[in-house]
Amino acid sequence: MEILDGKKLSEQIKEEIKQAVSLRKENGLKTPHLAAVLVGNDGASLTYVGSKVKSCERVGFKSTLIRLEDSISEEALLSKIKELNQDDTLDGYIVQLPLPKHINEEKILLAVDPKKDVDGFHPANFGRMALEMESFIPATPFGIMEMLKRYDLDISGKHCVVIGRSHIVGRPISILMSQKGQPGNATVTLAHSRTKNLAALTQKADIIVSALGVPDFLKADMVKQGVIVIDVGITRVSDENHPRGYVIKGDVDFKAVAKKSSYITPVPGGVGPMTIAMLLQNTLLSCERSDG
Amino acid sequence: MEILDGKKLSEQIKEEIKQAVSLRKENGLKTPHLAAVLVGNDGASLTYVGSKVKSCERVGFKSTLIRLEDSISEEALLSKIKELNQDDTLDGYIVQLPLPKHINEEKILLAVDPKKDVDGFHPANFGRMALEMESFIPATPFGIMEMLKRYDLDISGKHCVVIGRSHIVGRPISILMSQKGQPGNATVTLAHSRTKNLAALTQKADIIVSALGVPDFLKADMVKQGVIVIDVGITRVSDENHPRGYVIKGDVDFKAVAKKSSYITPVPGGVGPMTIAMLLQNTLLSCERSDG
Repeated sequence: MEILDGKKLSEQIKEEIKQAVSLRKENGLKTPHLAAVLVGNDGASLTYVGSKVKSCERVGFKSTLIRLEDSISEEALLSKIKELNQDDTLDGYIVQLPLPKHINEEKILLAVDPKKDVDGFHPANFGRMALEMESFIPATPFGIMEMLKRYDLDISGKHCVVIGRSHIVGRPISILMSQKGQPGNATVTLAHSRTKNLAALTQKADIIVSALGVPDFLKADMVKQGVIVIDVGITRVSDENHPRGYVIKGDVDFKAVAKKSSYITPVPGGVGPMTIAMLLQNTLLSCERSDG
Repeated sequence: MEILDGKKLSEQIKEEIKQAVSLRKENGLKTPHLAAVLVGNDGASLTYVGSKVKSCERVGFKSTLIRLEDSISEEALLSKIKELNQDDTLDGYIVQLPLPKHINEEKILLAVDPKKDVDGFHPANFGRMALEMESFIPATPFGIMEMLKRYDLDISGKHCVVIGRSHIVGRPISILMSQKGQPGNATVTLAHSRTKNLAALTQKADIIVSALGVPDFLKADMVKQGVIVIDVGITRVSDENHPRGYVIKGDVDFKAVAKKSSYITPVPGGVGPMTIAMLLQNTLLSCERSDG
């Protein structure tokens, strides 16, 4: 069993990005600039955005944190988005979700200029990705593909079961893994809440990507010997014994499943850190694409 | 065994469209208008486009056939596209593929205004479809979904194997069948040229959608008793005994597979006629959306 060490890999990718940025600066090229829009004071969102801004500093990006009141109107937020679209100094920006209930997330998402949509959530980018054109790939599936690539795992012709059909993980990773390319060409089954007899599927899978958000969902008796397991679950579970008051749990019963796996991602330290690295990668890509 | 009669169903849908158009006219609303761009003189393309134009007449649409020389430059075609985008009388148009080799199909495709892209081939529409927003769904997968719906076939939780990962059939139908909705919620496996041991997959499938283009590919020993079979293959096979010199063959060894099937589409007369009906449906939708 080998751990797919997302923490280590993401550090390596960040180091590469840092060097690319440094080279850009030497050559008089623009410094990549990422902005993050945070509406309100949600604890988890603050943590995520904070960690993204910190990562920007780490690789030499310029970063801007835009904090807006919980009470901001949809109209005011849309006008902020418009401003960001027109800001030529910005290579990309993200709008941290969830947004307050009085704001229509789809409307905001659609207002983002696809050229600055480094989260890859805009349908124009999603469609380009699905049709194998140049796009921004959502950071989490992009991170999984990069992980498979760097560990040189050959998924061609292998049977992969993706659990969960979310727009930002399950759906796009099921598409990417089955496309031509390296890594790619997997035979992918997309399973979800309505799937009957999921265990019968996962027991035959060469690769399992679990993006369900149910702690310890995938048990050892649901997988076959030698399986590759990618755990995308990140759920906060209360834990009085922990100073933070919670621990982060993946979808996979790690200890038991690891014993049967050839490769497995831990949580934390697996897919999570890769996600931030790929957001930076998308921002660098956007900057490079605008070099002209 | 019941035949999924695409010919009959498409006639019914066209009749409904015809009535909707007639009602629009009575109410002083715009008559839907579809244009088709045909470059060159390819025989199959002429047949397809001719049949689309004829179907427009049948339902009371206005239709325009734009025939262009094989030798047209990419630039001139792009400027024609621009003209069609700006033509307010048009609700939608299609550019018949394939285009001559000196023209970049992707460039042409991207130039089509997504609001008039009734083929649903533009990435903006594809992305919206994949993310469950209002869009134009490509006519063939749209036709398959409509067929499942009108025959009231419940695919929820069923295992569906889609063979072929093309951008216009395999990929979109694999997405649509696994989305929430009715019909929907199937557990979908997308198989393709790199899939190992395809028969082991198809033998367990409750539903098989074959979009491979290999005549008589799917044999009786590859399916289980009671399977639902959707044959998207349309291949011209030379046949000296036929006045046209060819016959149309599906992917499925129909006679043998039909005996084991609960429902099956014939070729011709299955998915093919549905495709044209759904192109008309998309054009009507476009017209209705512009009523404002």
